[in-house]
Amino acid sequence: MWYDGDAVGYLDQRALPQTVSRERARSVDEIVEAIRTLAVRGAPAIGIFGAYGVALAAQLHAGPAFAAAAQRIRAARPTAVNLAYAVDRVLARADHDFLAEANAVHAEQRDVDARIGRFGAEVLPRKGNVMTHCNAGPIATGGEGTALAAIITAHRAGKALHVFVDETRPLLQGARLTMFELREAGVPCTLITDSAAAVTMQRKKVDAVVVGADRIARNGDTANKIGTYGVAIMAAHHGIPFYVAAPRSTFDFAMASGMEIPIEERSPDEIRITADDAAYNPAFDVTPGRLITGIITEYGVLQPPYEEAIADLETRARILVDA
Amino acid sequence: MWYDGDAVGYLDQRALPQTVSRERARSVDEIVEAIRTLAVRGAPAIGIFGAYGVALAAQLHAGPAFAAAAQRIRAARPTAVNLAYAVDRVLARADHDFLAEANAVHAEQRDVDARIGRFGAEVLPRKGNVMTHCNAGPIATGGEGTALAAIITAHRAGKALHVFVDETRPLLQGARLTMFELREAGVPCTLITDSAAAVTMQRKKVDAVVVGADRIARNGDTANKIGTYGVAIMAAHHGIPFYVAAPRSTFDFAMASGMEIPIEERSPDEIRITADDAAYNPAFDVTPGRLITGIITEYGVLQPPYEEAIADLETRARILVDA
Repeated sequence: MWYDGDAVGYLDQRALPQTVSRERARSVDEIVEAIRTLAVRGAPAIGIFGAYGVALAAQLHAGPAFAAAAQRIRAARPTAVNLAYAVDRVLARADHDFLAEANAVHAEQRDVDARIGRFGAEVLPRKGNVMTHCNAGPIATGGEGTALAAIITAHRAGKALHVFVDETRPLLQGARLTMFELREAGVPCTLITDSAAAVTMQRKKVDAVVVGADRIARNGDTANKIGTYGVAIMAAHHGIPFYVAAPRSTFDFAMASGMEIPIEERSPDEIRITADDAAYNPAFDVTPGRLITGIITEYGVLQPPYEEAIADLETRARILVDA
Repeated sequence: MWYDGDAVGYLDQRALPQTVSRERARSVDEIVEAIRTLAVRGAPAIGIFGAYGVALAAQLHAGPAFAAAAQRIRAARPTAVNLAYAVDRVLARADHDFLAEANAVHAEQRDVDARIGRFGAEVLPRKGNVMTHCNAGPIATGGEGTALAAIITAHRAGKALHVFVDETRPLLQGARLTMFELREAGVPCTLITDSAAAVTMQRKKVDAVVVGADRIARNGDTANKIGTYGVAIMAAHHGIPFYVAAPRSTFDFAMASGMEIPIEERSPDEIRITADDAAYNPAFDVTPGRLITGIITEYGVLQPPYEEAIADLETRARILVDA
């Protein structure tokens, strides 16, 4: 993502991996549309995109029209806590230099990703198989990613990792994005269907699972792409450590338990074959904290009991970054 | 499937669910073609179709031409054990009333399915949600199916069941066939992605899981469509009973443990998006007997310890059926 003077540039994630299509959102409508249609997706990426979107809105609109535009961007994806955070932060900028604040949001994300990458690389084995679900890579964050930052950083540090990538139905972010990013980074990887995760754990010796997160409650309950909860259950069943990688901004310190998170449902048309079919198509699920071995943050790896570790995380000093 | 005087009728499974196309195979060439192109699939269904095919061949050909025709049908799908079995059985008929023997093969399948349906219906709740994976319904057996026989029989008996159907990547047998069959039978059903199974169990209150089987070892270990093992782990995690429905002919009494079953791998092209992607595409997985609440057979519902229950099943008398 980049700010272009009169537009916010982005990579259309829907076209990958066949086409690397760089687009420009030139209006608030186009910003909202890009978020809604998942052309831009991944919690931190949405946040940065929304931050740039507010800077763009400030160029195009003033007064109440600007305020309304900012609120439309903020509400474009209700589950994305990063989006609301980033929009609020940019709006709170005292000198109203919204672009400077958006740039700061982006620079901080790059720094946060690098830190998550270093802490995450430490918990991964020196050699072995890692599984991941959905996409928590560079494309999703605007930096190096979260789960993939850990894997890519470990790979660069000489760890001999092989990654099994769940395709992640229905939108196939794993097959389309994660496979693309791992290949770009030179990390050996193998695609599997979501339904092959269990037999892969059983017969291929998976040493660790690392996934990203959309929202984490105070007790460690983690909302993430549909299918994550099942992978966590299967990992626990096979005694495989299960890690979540996410920045502090993903934590919802006001939420005691993930069971409070409403499950967003997407259109049945994404999965059904005939118009007669009823379909239940939840976008997320919530993995209970007790299935999570550790949560990799820019402050280090949190371990249970999460109530204590996350309360501590909330009060840690902000990391300063030169933007 | 049905015998039509001068043809064998069948439903072209390739066109489902978009088109319900009833076809008539009027020659040995058309019989062989329907099997080869998977217009007719499902192990028991292929056997019954081949049996009718031999009866048709006997009408059209005599002497060495008939013998050659029967062997062509027998070899139309070399991996289908049921096909060779059914053709040999029809050919062995002492009075050469091949149609009567084909009818007997079909009648026995209907009887086995009906018994599985009755025993299976008993273990399902009076009302509630049931989950199934892949396709174990009427189309695959020529009767009422196995897992779906249980569900459909329970529905007819007045049990208020709602079925969550895993789409079953990569070939989508659940989305294409199971949804179609349940709709035809009037059973309320909802399609989900395989990766939504865990959240569905957690938030929609699933009361039971029922699946079919490809092969069952003496200890209850069950090979079935890829993804079954994961569903079984998730069911156990949520305390949901997990049933396998299968006729005695599915048991491999010579195999002590399912871990001996080699995992057949299908082409990576079924799942990968670009030709650069490595992909692991196992066709089935093996669910350990300890995750299975009961195995529904035409002799009743087997319960652990399976070593004893399956040894008993092996020695039970054959069930006589009036054709």
